[in-house]
Amino acid sequence: MTEATLDVVGIGNAIIDLLTHADDKFLERHQLARGAMTLIDEATAERLYAAMGPVTRASGGSAGNTIAGLGSLGAACGYIGKLRDDELGAAYRHDLLAAGVRFTTAMATDGPATARCIIFVTSDGERTMNTYLGACVNLTADDIDEALVASAKVTYLEGYLYDDPQAKAAFHRAADIAHAAGRKVALSLSDAFCVERHRADFLDLVQNRVDILFANETEIASLFESNDLDSAFAKLAAMVELAAVTLGSEGSVVVCGDERIKSPAARVERVVDTTGAGDLYAAGFLYGLTRDQPLAECARIAGLAAAEVISHFGARPETPLREYAGLA
Amino acid sequence: MTEATLDVVGIGNAIIDLLTHADDKFLERHQLARGAMTLIDEATAERLYAAMGPVTRASGGSAGNTIAGLGSLGAACGYIGKLRDDELGAAYRHDLLAAGVRFTTAMATDGPATARCIIFVTSDGERTMNTYLGACVNLTADDIDEALVASAKVTYLEGYLYDDPQAKAAFHRAADIAHAAGRKVALSLSDAFCVERHRADFLDLVQNRVDILFANETEIASLFESNDLDSAFAKLAAMVELAAVTLGSEGSVVVCGDERIKSPAARVERVVDTTGAGDLYAAGFLYGLTRDQPLAECARIAGLAAAEVISHFGARPETPLREYAGLA
Repeated sequence: MTEATLDVVGIGNAIIDLLTHADDKFLERHQLARGAMTLIDEATAERLYAAMGPVTRASGGSAGNTIAGLGSLGAACGYIGKLRDDELGAAYRHDLLAAGVRFTTAMATDGPATARCIIFVTSDGERTMNTYLGACVNLTADDIDEALVASAKVTYLEGYLYDDPQAKAAFHRAADIAHAAGRKVALSLSDAFCVERHRADFLDLVQNRVDILFANETEIASLFESNDLDSAFAKLAAMVELAAVTLGSEGSVVVCGDERIKSPAARVERVVDTTGAGDLYAAGFLYGLTRDQPLAECARIAGLAAAEVISHFGARPETPLREYAGLA
Repeated sequence: MTEATLDVVGIGNAIIDLLTHADDKFLERHQLARGAMTLIDEATAERLYAAMGPVTRASGGSAGNTIAGLGSLGAACGYIGKLRDDELGAAYRHDLLAAGVRFTTAMATDGPATARCIIFVTSDGERTMNTYLGACVNLTADDIDEALVASAKVTYLEGYLYDDPQAKAAFHRAADIAHAAGRKVALSLSDAFCVERHRADFLDLVQNRVDILFANETEIASLFESNDLDSAFAKLAAMVELAAVTLGSEGSVVVCGDERIKSPAARVERVVDTTGAGDLYAAGFLYGLTRDQPLAECARIAGLAAAEVISHFGARPETPLREYAGLA
């Protein structure tokens, strides 16, 4: 097994976020699923865009946010995701390269446009996401850069990839390459409704192909169809090497064999926008892990990275995270 | 004189902001004028874009920010500015319409692309702006919608328009229409270097065509080539009906005849990014003024609107300003 040259390679849906504020009446009027990620078609995306308030545009996507966070912490990263060669695609690519991320996936020259996620943030900081997958549906197993995946200590996959059959094949190929190279595979469960859509697949995946699992409590409840966290932790301990379960304002619990390492949430002045909270938790955690830090320290950095991102609008860090986490 | 149907019409350079964080070393390496607005050509824009970190994209432009702020406060507004019919232009237009702003300016179907401002925010919250004017240079006197201007209580002009000879003619036409309709003309001095470039013109303008002047202390110092604020206030009192001079963390002074109304700055947890501070001060002030509020109350709302915008990344309000200013 050769020395890894990268810390983490992330694979996910490459999506431009279009964020705005909205009130509950707006969500009701447009029948949006509050707090969830809902897949929408292009016509719905156009309709919601026309109805939405002034927009802040930034690169997003779950694994993309995690990789941007890792870059901000100083980790060496790569990213695999499908963009179209349009303006949004160029913007997404710019942001990856600007964060020092290795990005080798060929951009589609035809087919659907670069993906967009229309995000409504309510005054409680909750985000309601509506994703038009666009070019993402054309990510295939052929897009998995074998050398890139094999070179990273951890391959990080987002559960959202399962919403597309071809991306699922890409997902499996990446996991196989990583394991064949003696690396670890991490998975984020992404969203409770996503887990609902792919429960049997996810259970099989977690059991057989995943070493490190990231999830929040509602995703775990959906996975095991039970609200009993202690029993879920026991099941997780038997299925994966390591699981980090976030509990919102209650912090997180890291499950490792018989160990349960509980960490409080880092303090924030005001929760402005929870978009990207889970993604940045994973970034902080993987930063610590790829530097062989104790699990409690991994969880501490994770909590700080999440705290930074929920204290402002948008899913990617605004403050250089090395500084924010006191690592500079 | 017919009843005004709009509160404020803003006329300015319609610009998409591309924001990122940078440190002083970056500014030095790229020879950027810290804290200033520098005009750049397209090649320099491309070079800076390639060198800049991950980007947050949002509509900007001085008068555009002011109008967006006024919309957020609940005022009825219009905007005149030149966009190209490209993706950035469509995004800018979306944001105006989404804020309920009347926007009638024809978008250019050829010529330079929609304008961009590449903004580097340093850790002290200072912003360094680099503007490629693009399509803005094609704003002409013909773009001034006479009915729109005549319908607004106040026509608000940004000094930056003077950087282009054609826009200058548009500027004069708008002021003449407003006055002919018995309305007020407001001007923002925009930037100390902009004042430097057009000092004689600006002095003539302030003396002869402007009723309400917005400026910060460095712009006033540049206008009168003196750091003596009291003497500047006396000169302003003789030249315009009303002047609001912002003093950064020291708040602001409203000059009206012999009156000097000093207001403290509104408290913010942390100055994240000063982009748009002056623009939003003007928004709050004009909101109060068009509702016949006492000058001290105008300055209070102005200070709160500025406080909101400097407490986060980006030049336009994230929190609905009616709520923030306790007007809801």
